[in-house]
Amino acid sequence: MCGGIGSRFWPYSRTDNPKQFIDFLGTGRSLLQMSYDRVLSIVPRENVIVLTNGRYAERIREQLPELAPDQILLEPARRNTAPAIAWAAWHIAERDPEASLMVAPSDHLITRERQFEEAILAGFDFVEHGDRLLTLGITPTRPETGYGYIQVGPAVEGDIHKVKTFTEKPNLELAETFVRTGEFFWNSGIFLWRASSIIEALRRHAPDVSRVFESGEGSYGTPEAEAAFIEANFPSCMGISIDYAVMERADNVFVETVSFGWNDLGTWGSLYDISPKNRDGNVTQGCHVLAYNSRGNIFAVRDRERLIVTDSLHDYIIADSGDVLLICPRAEEQRIRQMVNDAKAGFGDRYI
Amino acid sequence: MCGGIGSRFWPYSRTDNPKQFIDFLGTGRSLLQMSYDRVLSIVPRENVIVLTNGRYAERIREQLPELAPDQILLEPARRNTAPAIAWAAWHIAERDPEASLMVAPSDHLITRERQFEEAILAGFDFVEHGDRLLTLGITPTRPETGYGYIQVGPAVEGDIHKVKTFTEKPNLELAETFVRTGEFFWNSGIFLWRASSIIEALRRHAPDVSRVFESGEGSYGTPEAEAAFIEANFPSCMGISIDYAVMERADNVFVETVSFGWNDLGTWGSLYDISPKNRDGNVTQGCHVLAYNSRGNIFAVRDRERLIVTDSLHDYIIADSGDVLLICPRAEEQRIRQMVNDAKAGFGDRYI
Repeated sequence: MCGGIGSRFWPYSRTDNPKQFIDFLGTGRSLLQMSYDRVLSIVPRENVIVLTNGRYAERIREQLPELAPDQILLEPARRNTAPAIAWAAWHIAERDPEASLMVAPSDHLITRERQFEEAILAGFDFVEHGDRLLTLGITPTRPETGYGYIQVGPAVEGDIHKVKTFTEKPNLELAETFVRTGEFFWNSGIFLWRASSIIEALRRHAPDVSRVFESGEGSYGTPEAEAAFIEANFPSCMGISIDYAVMERADNVFVETVSFGWNDLGTWGSLYDISPKNRDGNVTQGCHVLAYNSRGNIFAVRDRERLIVTDSLHDYIIADSGDVLLICPRAEEQRIRQMVNDAKAGFGDRYI
Repeated sequence: MCGGIGSRFWPYSRTDNPKQFIDFLGTGRSLLQMSYDRVLSIVPRENVIVLTNGRYAERIREQLPELAPDQILLEPARRNTAPAIAWAAWHIAERDPEASLMVAPSDHLITRERQFEEAILAGFDFVEHGDRLLTLGITPTRPETGYGYIQVGPAVEGDIHKVKTFTEKPNLELAETFVRTGEFFWNSGIFLWRASSIIEALRRHAPDVSRVFESGEGSYGTPEAEAAFIEANFPSCMGISIDYAVMERADNVFVETVSFGWNDLGTWGSLYDISPKNRDGNVTQGCHVLAYNSRGNIFAVRDRERLIVTDSLHDYIIADSGDVLLICPRAEEQRIRQMVNDAKAGFGDRYI
């Protein structure tokens, strides 16, 4: 899944070049490319499907030139995760009705790839032996208030548990309780299931969505017909997340608890936390920095030739990309969404 | 005089595009162009001479295309004001041995042009009637510690006084005393004298400088010969200011006290002080700004298409130009020179 716009990382992440296409960690590979590399140890190259928005077709082809055209599903409109996952399920089921799927965001960081691989293989084994919907729950390492949590019931097999509840983002007190009990895991947005299982679950719990994709049967697998069908019908789907449409409603939902060094890179704070810091606690993404009496900042500058000079600046985000510069305290990063909205209200799409 | 590099306004002012060439006030005319416009009410167009460094030849031609080539004196090296003024004096004296000169920086702001014109005409009248060196002293409006002061003796004619002393930049306590006494005026760097008077003064007080330009007699007024002479000999002059070489040593030095809305635009603070502010006390030079909980800042951004977004930032200079961004408290602006030096030490001329 590669269609997000990463607005919490604005202006470093922009609508025309969002977070997943950026070499965020300076490794020479974008987050999308790192995600692709990671799954190749599990999935044959020709079975990787990228779900994205039509406007990113060119970016995908640049970054993953080895993908064949029918491995890139271009959504003609943004409709959240359920319609995108539904399309992928029908598309893949046409090729192989027995297929199992891993569905994963393309813009997360995973540091322990061996454990990731083992967890995914165990998960595939689980969903291939029954009509089960499996999500990955990350063992929490701190009382994070920015994530949803999954409460687990008793283990059914290895690290796999029945899901008891999905929760919204908790306040700090509740998050601390969650972590203390050991029953709550971060909702990673990584799912495993058979194509037939998610199709059946969509039919039962999200018939408005499933009806659209059922009506396309006959076109899947025939590139021109499929593209024409999607172009005409995908936009009519309601925008709804797979969590809300299916996971929180179905009763065959399980969670595999894992610890593989996961970070959703959802906020500047999460990027700051995982990044190497100099002795003043400053993090530099690209660019040259001369920092006088300046501590705890993150300098995220797309143009690596730029020189940033700061004096008396502590715990700020300095994000500079193209025609936008943002200077904002790290503690106020939740305001960035509002800033994006205000910029849009004032200047249209120009700076977004 | 148009050869400075404006390093206190770095990075808005850069070596290849210093302060005097910038439309600093957003009026559509650079400071140089505004200075040129101002003197045209006093001096015939063909008598305006621009003294600058060779590297700025093209900029001058762009900004003042009406000047003939022999009105632009291109210094082959930076040698402070005395050698530049000496060259101009010899150059002009060749054309007209009786000429009077006004020597003025090209990067100051003067808001009351009528009073400026009247003061200059009175000053010319004074220096044309005797062998006198006249400087303009600005009536101080605040105890500024960033300027040199001139103490005046008794008036000799109208607003013209004998100079008692030149002083260095005072501390605040001393500056307050200076202003209170009414005897001290800001040293503006604007001078009036006959060509013959400054040549005689240089011969007497700065023979190392005058000897160089005397040796060029015969070449002045013959463009190729003059250029060749300057190219070969100007760099051998020592770098010394006209204040130190002549004004503080000669005994025929007078000061005309004036009040014509002068600002040397020497620092970010001086620019902030004179600029229109919005209700949060923010000053914007070019660019679009979204300021959240941000007061008392000056946003100086060369690229007027940029959007700057700040949160929780008070009393800062945010200066952005080309490949350099500076974020520095207004109260720390005196550190900018050191930053320029550090940038030079770290990266050579790249960012200067």
